[in-house]
Amino acid sequence: MRQELEKHGLDAFLCVQNTRYLTGTDAGKAVIVPQDDAPILICSRLEYERVRQRSRIRDIRAFSSWKSPLQRGERVFFLEPWQLIVKCLKELGARSVGYDKASRAFIRKLRNAYSASYREKPEIMEDLRKIKSNEELALLSRSAEIAERGMNRAAELIEPGRTELEVAAEAEYRMRKLGSSGTPFQTVVASGGNSWLPHSSATKKKLAKGELIVVDLGANFNGYASDMTRTFALAPTSKQSKILQIVKRAQLAALAKVRSGAKAMEVDAAARSVIERAGYAKFFTHSTGHGVGLEIHELPSLAPNSKDILKRGMVITVEPGVYLPNVGGARWEDMLVVTKDGYRLLTL
Amino acid sequence: MRQELEKHGLDAFLCVQNTRYLTGTDAGKAVIVPQDDAPILICSRLEYERVRQRSRIRDIRAFSSWKSPLQRGERVFFLEPWQLIVKCLKELGARSVGYDKASRAFIRKLRNAYSASYREKPEIMEDLRKIKSNEELALLSRSAEIAERGMNRAAELIEPGRTELEVAAEAEYRMRKLGSSGTPFQTVVASGGNSWLPHSSATKKKLAKGELIVVDLGANFNGYASDMTRTFALAPTSKQSKILQIVKRAQLAALAKVRSGAKAMEVDAAARSVIERAGYAKFFTHSTGHGVGLEIHELPSLAPNSKDILKRGMVITVEPGVYLPNVGGARWEDMLVVTKDGYRLLTL
Repeated sequence: MRQELEKHGLDAFLCVQNTRYLTGTDAGKAVIVPQDDAPILICSRLEYERVRQRSRIRDIRAFSSWKSPLQRGERVFFLEPWQLIVKCLKELGARSVGYDKASRAFIRKLRNAYSASYREKPEIMEDLRKIKSNEELALLSRSAEIAERGMNRAAELIEPGRTELEVAAEAEYRMRKLGSSGTPFQTVVASGGNSWLPHSSATKKKLAKGELIVVDLGANFNGYASDMTRTFALAPTSKQSKILQIVKRAQLAALAKVRSGAKAMEVDAAARSVIERAGYAKFFTHSTGHGVGLEIHELPSLAPNSKDILKRGMVITVEPGVYLPNVGGARWEDMLVVTKDGYRLLTL
Repeated sequence: MRQELEKHGLDAFLCVQNTRYLTGTDAGKAVIVPQDDAPILICSRLEYERVRQRSRIRDIRAFSSWKSPLQRGERVFFLEPWQLIVKCLKELGARSVGYDKASRAFIRKLRNAYSASYREKPEIMEDLRKIKSNEELALLSRSAEIAERGMNRAAELIEPGRTELEVAAEAEYRMRKLGSSGTPFQTVVASGGNSWLPHSSATKKKLAKGELIVVDLGANFNGYASDMTRTFALAPTSKQSKILQIVKRAQLAALAKVRSGAKAMEVDAAARSVIERAGYAKFFTHSTGHGVGLEIHELPSLAPNSKDILKRGMVITVEPGVYLPNVGGARWEDMLVVTKDGYRLLTL
């Protein structure tokens, strides 16, 4: 990160969006990373002790918007968050400050109180986050394993008469008991008429014969997301089976292109051309995949207009889909780490 | 909303943060509300059909960053989201455009492509959202009911030997089966040494005698959050019982001040003074409450520095807490609607 700050001519960087990435806990409000000094974590007074126990960053300063007596050892400033940030920037003497995300009003307050050049540079953190560390890979791998266990539970329940909601609830419950803390997106259990809405969440609708059922779910393990889709078929028509076959073949074609150095758009093109040749181009309405990390959608993007190049250590999904109105929708998605010569699947 | 636009001299408002509030679905990306025309909903192509089925807004325009064949009836523009927004603003001839949330880079792109005055005005929507409509109150009421059922399930499981995670998983499972789609914040089941960290989420730690156990949970019903806290005691020490009593008394004192026209800071002060008189002022490290709606934390704020005035139709929490290191933490929280002369509890 410091190399990037130097490259961009920044004395310090204010992280609001990427606090968890830098600290390992969601309890912080902001992190200031100076070029030459130790980073500073800023948190609400209410989170002081939790941050103290769980953050990698040791210089912790809490704010409280009102005065009240302090406990022994608490490091609390009776200031608004922006005032505490100003205080830190002053102390650091930062002249050029990058930041990842903030409202205009917030930056205006900083600038009025402390004159510096403030520059919105979310791409610095986005780019760093593309390549996962070994520690991150271990967490993502566990997150994917839990998703897989959730999917196995869903699979057990796919039968006529069950509701979509029931399948989702049971899969989530399984993941939760395995240590997932909530889902990174609303679990999709989309059957019949819902299956051709790519992001339909689970409803009270009952599963029935002659339907495709798309299940798209993920876990959250220590903040790290996972993402996996399977499409089930209950006594499918031959047209439904055909769609499902095409989607699976499209995924295999895309996977075959994945390796360090490959263009993301080429991976997308491989999936897209299988679907196109089958005559379903207009029913593949989204991109082929995306990066996954602390957020469910990160860089790189695997789309026709993507400029990203895959690199070793990126974690991505590959998930082509075909959504044929009045017939059925199908999507097949795995999550994988890009390696030098190919990839390693995190979901199976 | 149009009255507000007029008051601020805006021809149109671009909503990114508040899309669900305006449309009733999370499938949209942005809404443009003109002063004189019908609102326009902008969504990804992938969400077109879902938006069409579920949105209150009928003028729907989808974007796709790449060209591909269209299905019959699809209204898709092969543009980036910002380009489609520019196209709409041009069509409306808007000269003065408010917006709730956007990066500098995004607004710069709009301005370079279409010259207008762009003004960040999140407060317009925040203020509108403070007072809930009857439709919103019905959803919040159901969301609170589900939270209550989840809390009842947690209560059944509070016994020595169970893990915090198990209690959280079972409570969430109960809420999920009742139609909650995920939790609006990480469920807190904080026992013993975790109980004095106000936002400790559930861990593998087992509950034991001589502990206070704080359970803070919420449901998400059709997008609307709920929020409720109970503190359980397993064979508590007299000091632990005392803390719990003080917190409950503080809550009652605060509730007694709630009515349309009351100052939020006075409600906070009522809770705070009970805790102060008991000698625990420095262990009440947060505010007394907050608004709840589509987001778990909305306006008004019930804090010593709040300038908010309570009004009929606001939905708030009242949740004082005392966190005594090495003894135990306690918080007691209910969610309620402000009425003309008092309040109606949504949690019981």
